[in-house]
Amino acid sequence: MSEMTAGETASLTGFVGGKWETEINVRDFIQRNYTPYYGDSSFLAEPTDATKKLWQKCLDLFKKERENLGVLDMDTKIVSTITSHSAGYIDKDLEKIVGLQTDKPLKRSLQPFGGIRMAESACEAYDYKVDNEITEIFTKYRKTHNQGVFDVYTPEMRKARHAAILTGLPDAYGRGRIIGDYRRIALYGIDRLIKDKLEQHASIDGEMTPEKIQLKEELAEQIRALEEMKELGNIYGCDISKPAQNAREAVQWLYFGYLSAVKEQNGAAMSIGRTSTFLDIFIERDLKLGLITEAEAQELIDHFVMKLRLVKFARTPEYNALFSGDPSWVTESIGGMGVDGRTLVTKNSFRYLHTLENLGTAPEPNLTVLWSTKLPQNFKEYAAHISIATSSIQYENDDMMRQVHGDDYAIACCVSSMVVGKEMQFFGARANLAKCLLYAINGGIDERLKEQVGPKYRPITSEYLDYDEVMEKYDDMMEWLAGLYVNTLNVIHYMHDKYCYERAQMALHDRDVKRYFATGIAGLSVVADSLSAIKYAKVRTIRDENGIVTDYEIEGDYPKYGNNDDRVDKIAVNLVHSFMSKIRKHYTYRDSIPTMSILTITSNVVYGKKTGNTPDGRKAGVPLAPGANPMHGRDSNGAVASLASVAKLPFGDAQDGISNTFSIIPNALGKDEVFMGDMDLNVQLDCGCCEGGINSKGDYTNSYMTPLIKKTQKKTTEETTYSKI
Amino acid sequence: MSEMTAGETASLTGFVGGKWETEINVRDFIQRNYTPYYGDSSFLAEPTDATKKLWQKCLDLFKKERENLGVLDMDTKIVSTITSHSAGYIDKDLEKIVGLQTDKPLKRSLQPFGGIRMAESACEAYDYKVDNEITEIFTKYRKTHNQGVFDVYTPEMRKARHAAILTGLPDAYGRGRIIGDYRRIALYGIDRLIKDKLEQHASIDGEMTPEKIQLKEELAEQIRALEEMKELGNIYGCDISKPAQNAREAVQWLYFGYLSAVKEQNGAAMSIGRTSTFLDIFIERDLKLGLITEAEAQELIDHFVMKLRLVKFARTPEYNALFSGDPSWVTESIGGMGVDGRTLVTKNSFRYLHTLENLGTAPEPNLTVLWSTKLPQNFKEYAAHISIATSSIQYENDDMMRQVHGDDYAIACCVSSMVVGKEMQFFGARANLAKCLLYAINGGIDERLKEQVGPKYRPITSEYLDYDEVMEKYDDMMEWLAGLYVNTLNVIHYMHDKYCYERAQMALHDRDVKRYFATGIAGLSVVADSLSAIKYAKVRTIRDENGIVTDYEIEGDYPKYGNNDDRVDKIAVNLVHSFMSKIRKHYTYRDSIPTMSILTITSNVVYGKKTGNTPDGRKAGVPLAPGANPMHGRDSNGAVASLASVAKLPFGDAQDGISNTFSIIPNALGKDEVFMGDMDLNVQLDCGCCEGGINSKGDYTNSYMTPLIKKTQKKTTEETTYSKI
Repeated sequence: MSEMTAGETASLTGFVGGKWETEINVRDFIQRNYTPYYGDSSFLAEPTDATKKLWQKCLDLFKKERENLGVLDMDTKIVSTITSHSAGYIDKDLEKIVGLQTDKPLKRSLQPFGGIRMAESACEAYDYKVDNEITEIFTKYRKTHNQGVFDVYTPEMRKARHAAILTGLPDAYGRGRIIGDYRRIALYGIDRLIKDKLEQHASIDGEMTPEKIQLKEELAEQIRALEEMKELGNIYGCDISKPAQNAREAVQWLYFGYLSAVKEQNGAAMSIGRTSTFLDIFIERDLKLGLITEAEAQELIDHFVMKLRLVKFARTPEYNALFSGDPSWVTESIGGMGVDGRTLVTKNSFRYLHTLENLGTAPEPNLTVLWSTKLPQNFKEYAAHISIATSSIQYENDDMMRQVHGDDYAIACCVSSMVVGKEMQFFGARANLAKCLLYAINGGIDERLKEQVGPKYRPITSEYLDYDEVMEKYDDMMEWLAGLYVNTLNVIHYMHDKYCYERAQMALHDRDVKRYFATGIAGLSVVADSLSAIKYAKVRTIRDENGIVTDYEIEGDYPKYGNNDDRVDKIAVNLVHSFMSKIRKHYTYRDSIPTMSILTITSNVVYGKKTGNTPDGRKAGVPLAPGANPMHGRDSNGAVASLASVAKLPFGDAQDGISNTFSIIPNALGKDEVFMGDMDLNVQLDCGCCEGGINSKGDYTNSYMTPLIKKTQKKTTEETTYSKI
Repeated sequence: MSEMTAGETASLTGFVGGKWETEINVRDFIQRNYTPYYGDSSFLAEPTDATKKLWQKCLDLFKKERENLGVLDMDTKIVSTITSHSAGYIDKDLEKIVGLQTDKPLKRSLQPFGGIRMAESACEAYDYKVDNEITEIFTKYRKTHNQGVFDVYTPEMRKARHAAILTGLPDAYGRGRIIGDYRRIALYGIDRLIKDKLEQHASIDGEMTPEKIQLKEELAEQIRALEEMKELGNIYGCDISKPAQNAREAVQWLYFGYLSAVKEQNGAAMSIGRTSTFLDIFIERDLKLGLITEAEAQELIDHFVMKLRLVKFARTPEYNALFSGDPSWVTESIGGMGVDGRTLVTKNSFRYLHTLENLGTAPEPNLTVLWSTKLPQNFKEYAAHISIATSSIQYENDDMMRQVHGDDYAIACCVSSMVVGKEMQFFGARANLAKCLLYAINGGIDERLKEQVGPKYRPITSEYLDYDEVMEKYDDMMEWLAGLYVNTLNVIHYMHDKYCYERAQMALHDRDVKRYFATGIAGLSVVADSLSAIKYAKVRTIRDENGIVTDYEIEGDYPKYGNNDDRVDKIAVNLVHSFMSKIRKHYTYRDSIPTMSILTITSNVVYGKKTGNTPDGRKAGVPLAPGANPMHGRDSNGAVASLASVAKLPFGDAQDGISNTFSIIPNALGKDEVFMGDMDLNVQLDCGCCEGGINSKGDYTNSYMTPLIKKTQKKTTEETTYSKI
């Protein structure tokens, strides 16, 4: 039956058939039908009048929003669900791609499932008030994710969170990092997807363990979400039960899937996947059949991207402070190479980047080029051109990720790669290893709060720090921190599944997904340098009236991380390996695969604020180095040595990403626009979503940087960031 | 700290101190403080004027309720929670013990957490309509137990349920069978209980597995329920944060606990525990101090019992049909012996039974005498007297149960014994073994529906049934049924915990409770006789046009179960052992301990209706024998032989109870009221809650019978029932 339906579709639509007809397999469809493009950008079309008018309306709305202190309107009565709102438009007559989160553009939706207090605070911050009845429902009848988490947090977890040795935990907002394979809706239509999910539901039988009951119930919820997506289509006059019949429908169907996700979830990162080459297949066919012109094709993408730029959530000021604005991380992964050697760049890869010209620069969607040395030269040059012009493209290393994930992965948030529809991540924020070192020295007493936060291990009582003694105590304290961290995350993810399950996004996944249990660390270089100082120089402790070590005096010099000096670099390498090994000792929710990242851009500032004086000479409150960076100014042997130190860190112990941020003075690169070609670096963009984000003023700007060194820096971009997975 | 508080309480109240002061230990308090009573009933007081007036008001309300087709009023707007309603009274000035389920007596409360459709149907059956807003909340925002279960049921589970090879499953109403230790509130006050629960909450730490997270969250919910109980007290002007200071408070505090339970849960059996001797301690003290008179003491108990008689739930007609009316099984366990040899009978044991005189006979509360041969003669005689006068006492075998549970257990529902506050049961209804035999013969095809319900095993194709072939196939089919049954229950109990957790009742339990996973079987004697006929006579199959065996012809005679004939009795014994062994093979939710019962009173009629002709010669639609009974009329060797057959069944394989119901013509016992003394039978009352219940007209009457044979049968009682655990 399903074969027939799919077969008919194929013959009707003229696509090349294959496995994708008999199973849900978007990659197979892409591989059999896409048209690699090696040409240049000369085919690209200017924005249509409709696009220009529509975008001007959006710009006006953004302006109004800024004038209105950052929020134009908020829903305080209608709980956002897939079908909660009637149709909303920017300008119905002009829109080729329709669908808004609520019934008006930029009206923030009300999402209390993660936490009613969070929803209330977000409203109150902008002088709105959540309807009493909603508060009552989500207090008396419907428990939230946040309530569940706090019901189970131990005092130790609360304290660690308060002291900020653990921070950014997704316990009051959506965890995000889940990418629905929205393409499936366009290719198969909802009915076929429901049929597939019903088969999956039926396939869970036999011994009913809690694990199986949970998955089976989730599948039932996914089916319900798919039914609602169909209803969402109906609200906008679209029948998405069947496959898309043309390019416009393909874009529209796909967008309805994404729209469903953002109507239900306010995850810190709501990425869209890898859609451009998939959609190109529909556009190519329509172009060939003479059904649309290039201008119309570009218009579809422009309008689609416009919609993605409008995605906003109701956030609290605290959230905005932590995340540097209100990023939604609508990451779209573009280009890359196929495992068969053909490039996955299509004309549509150009069209997506071209939106930055047609609509102007913008941080969202987070356009991410999957960079390969093998990418077509014309595409490389166009991407470089757009990067230089807009500073708005993120680049990541496809050659590296393709080895792990094949050629149908996408980036969630900023660096977390996952095979679309087959893998997901439990997001885990960060543990502060620098603070952990201070706890080791002070026997678990927080140096800033002067409270016992960690375990009451014996503190160091000597005046001068002994390396072996510190290492032994530090190892114990990391052991504690790793366990606490993993178990805190276990609570969070259990409750997220229980009270705020991502049914729409998971409906667009396979039955059995691979789950990553992401953890992260901050303060690596501070710890490496501190231990190096203790080992190679003499570090004297300075104590307060209660004997708590609050400062350090270093006598002599010591090797510093970031100079390609193995004496200290090995300390850093061992640290990463050691902490990850400790993470791996613990049970992880749903038997997910533990991973770790060394990945911060701006949260290092917040971490630093909450971390006292450290034995490397860093003063209390001074920012930690971002990610795996050497401490600012200590990498005195030049950029190559600095990068070499970072490059030693074991990727196998930090599979969720290692970031290294550094600045280059543009003038140092010469005076012309220069394309530097492919650098032999495993470059991946740093992360601002998790707890950092990029400096933001009104419209925040991502300072994404690239292996394409550019000399004409945008004024708003103070530094360029290089990262390495 | 806690010791001091409790110590102060003890000294204030003049109770004998002990372990109960430093830990939550009601039994210890009872043992150290209670006064066994060996006297007769002459001390008992008549009802006070207030009691008479109040009860007359209740009788008027009951009458009105009957006139109003069984329901006086229903709540359609306010979801019942512990604190949902303002104070309600029968007559505030007269009531010594206050508190109603809603704001008016007999107004049925709205309990949608188990299932919104069930709540709606219950209302619609009486021409009420649940508020649209409530329907919306429990459809859009708050999932129910019923919805959860049906999300996960497999088609096989649905079919087995539809075909009635599994019936009475608690998937749309509360599972019940959980007894909160309501006495704790009187003894300790809520604040102390919260303190204890906070310590329990804190005690769950370390590796956060789903099991631990679940328990920890449940403890948080329990604490919330305790807080709400305190608020419930406030609503009625009582501060139950502190221990009860006198007898009236003790009864009142305890009742607030029970009231909280029935405000939150509509379980098929909401039993109250073992409260009479506990309360006697407070009454004795007040009597000694001259604070109350016996009349006032009796008034407290009368008013308390009155309140228990008013407990009602909103039920659907289907529920009432299955459960023979609307029993709430407010079972109170009275008397019994202590493990130290002293009787647990107190004056208050008399007072409880005396309510049947002061207020007249009634099925609720289900007063259950824990019978021991060692009970004081005066109490035995008084109980016999009340039994004969009211037919309203249930007796169970304390001498047997005390061996297993000690001396502080109580009965949930009708026979399920559990240590108060330390054990609970996951209720599991019944599997029809007679139908299973027919499935074995027909290869899983239901003989009535003519549909494939069981697995497609090879059917029997021969004209004459061969014992070995049938046994082999039956064994396979039971294997299937046991697995399906356990897994269906796993789904039910998982979802009940998830969507309809008994937080108020479990708040009055220890942290780590022993959980029984109750299963049950029906049709034992039909199967035993059928197999005996196949083995010892010749059974010819009669097939319909599709070859399905629909009838049987027996040539010759065969030994029948119920005649103390080992040839067939051993078949029954093996069946019980075999099915229980198959049950034990499976994972049971929360590692609960699987038990089984052979226990039906009236559901055997429903089972029979849905079971085709059987090879023992029983015709389609004819009731199965109840519980472990021989088939009606086949026990031709007399009562002793019949009982002897039943007595062979292994208790170890049917720990939740074996019932044997039989009738005795009263005249056969002579013409005077005769006390028969202690029969050497393991007698326990049969069960009507689970899916049977006793014939009901308006006010239904339980035909509880007893080891005390009575000759003056009440007219409404058609048969007396003996049971055996």
